[in-house]
Amino acid sequence: MDHEALLRSYKGFDALYGLQILDCGDESVRGRVPVRDEVRQPFGLVHGGVIAAISEALASVGTAMAVLPEGNGALGLSNQTSFLRPIAEGTVHALATRRHRGRTTWVWDVEITDDAGRLCALSRMTIAVRPLRGGPPDAASPDSGS
Amino acid sequence: MDHEALLRSYKGFDALYGLQILDCGDESVRGRVPVRDEVRQPFGLVHGGVIAAISEALASVGTAMAVLPEGNGALGLSNQTSFLRPIAEGTVHALATRRHRGRTTWVWDVEITDDAGRLCALSRMTIAVRPLRGGPPDAASPDSGS
Amino acid sequence: MDHEALLRSYKGFDALYGLQILDCGDESVRGRVPVRDEVRQPFGLVHGGVIAAISEALASVGTAMAVLPEGNGALGLSNQTSFLRPIAEGTVHALATRRHRGRTTWVWDVEITDDAGRLCALSRMTIAVRPLRGGPPDAASPDSGS
Amino acid sequence: MDHEALLRSYKGFDALYGLQILDCGDESVRGRVPVRDEVRQPFGLVHGGVIAAISEALASVGTAMAVLPEGNGALGLSNQTSFLRPIAEGTVHALATRRHRGRTTWVWDVEITDDAGRLCALSRMTIAVRPLRGGPPDAASPDSGS
Repeated sequence: MDHEALLRSYKGFDALYGLQILDCGDESVRGRVPVRDEVRQPFGLVHGGVIAAISEALASVGTAMAVLPEGNGALGLSNQTSFLRPIAEGTVHALATRRHRGRTTWVWDVEITDDAGRLCALSRMTIAVRPLRGGPPDAASPDSGS
Repeated sequence: MDHEALLRSYKGFDALYGLQILDCGDESVRGRVPVRDEVRQPFGLVHGGVIAAISEALASVGTAMAVLPEGNGALGLSNQTSFLRPIAEGTVHALATRRHRGRTTWVWDVEITDDAGRLCALSRMTIAVRPLRGGPPDAASPDSGS
Repeated sequence: MDHEALLRSYKGFDALYGLQILDCGDESVRGRVPVRDEVRQPFGLVHGGVIAAISEALASVGTAMAVLPEGNGALGLSNQTSFLRPIAEGTVHALATRRHRGRTTWVWDVEITDDAGRLCALSRMTIAVRPLRGGPPDAASPDSGS
Repeated sequence: MDHEALLRSYKGFDALYGLQILDCGDESVRGRVPVRDEVRQPFGLVHGGVIAAISEALASVGTAMAVLPEGNGALGLSNQTSFLRPIAEGTVHALATRRHRGRTTWVWDVEITDDAGRLCALSRMTIAVRPLRGGPPDAASPDSGS
């Protein structure tokens, strides 16, 4: 099974809200999302869920690219996002930096900035690394004990 | 300005990923999202960003409905989501319960379950309550100090 | 090696700040800490670190009691504590409730209340379950990859 | 009232577990705790609550020193600590760096390292800044709505 092809052909949620991945490595990943009405909340600001989704995507992709060749998958364990300053227009810029590479968990810090370079949000992502066992992780995943 | 009309006419991110709000009060809010390809990540599971977005939306709407009549707005301060069990199909069910109603922050717990009623994710949302000062909160919000 | 004896004979940090464990099971654990000057911060309130420590201890002990007989250890992966209302005197009461029992991680919610029963803090604890491999987990622990 | 004297004369929880503050500014604070049995958990590792307490103390002191002269107090709103690698002996080193200085909340990142300079834990602290109103914050604090 060619997991990299699977990732490249993917047309799901990240395409829906408009994520563009600019650079991707196992130590840092950079992406952005243009602001349009479809990513706003009722008051006209970028929805916090978009910020959380960007962080989730960058940290997951950075981990997956490194662990897929070893037969492992990457699944988000926790997403802690703090919102510091709202973004109303322009582009949402994101830089994910790996802080820890453990055997079973990776930890990433994600900085969200606006077009003026101001820090607007911070996310800490914990990504679980688990054996794929013949296929991508599914609803009967290794951590689904009860 | 009629804030409730503003909220009702809103066609933004929550419509994009398909949030349906079923009940809304200032102590609990219930919603759901049907699973389709547009809310999945590359491995076919519901994207963690969708889970985080649902939690953000329910807690924000529950707070906003209560504080708008007093001239205050509601803005997410932090979104802490733990992923316990992936969801691959069916419907994402969400129940937000208020845990704290402070003068300047509200705290909500959100439980995410699948069609079988199994607990799949937990979010803790902190929502800031801030004076609207003649309009909805914007990029020059009260907390944007530096 | 008798791990339960090890735990019973333990005189470390939890004794230093005065934790009393009242009930301990693998689904809930109850404890308390009497307030005295040694658990206060400079303004006379109970130190946030004491609240975090109580949550860490209850969730770890509840997990450890269940997984030690299977040859596994329990180690805190993350501690997310939200402070809602300060405690200045009396007793800090804590109730930890298990929310998820996975193969590799357990998740607990901890409620902190004061003598009047008011909710003062909420913690979400993620505890890693790892094979002990002949001894308690140490600095060369399973997750210390790099 | 001389708040700086109050802070200097303080003999509470931070003294109990042995916190030494080495540098203190409103952009970074550095501290350390020597490892001894009284800061260990049952398996002989430094207790997660000690790590959380150090982060809470450094972020609170850094904020307080800056806002006390303006008549404001500093109170922890949330403490999110991720544990990456256990510490068993030597000294716990901590560096808190301010990431956001808002009108009502400050956000700090704290890095915990061991004697070998390895990253062992990461904390994200949110500190509330509130008017003191004639005295230090107490159990009838500004955010204690219900």
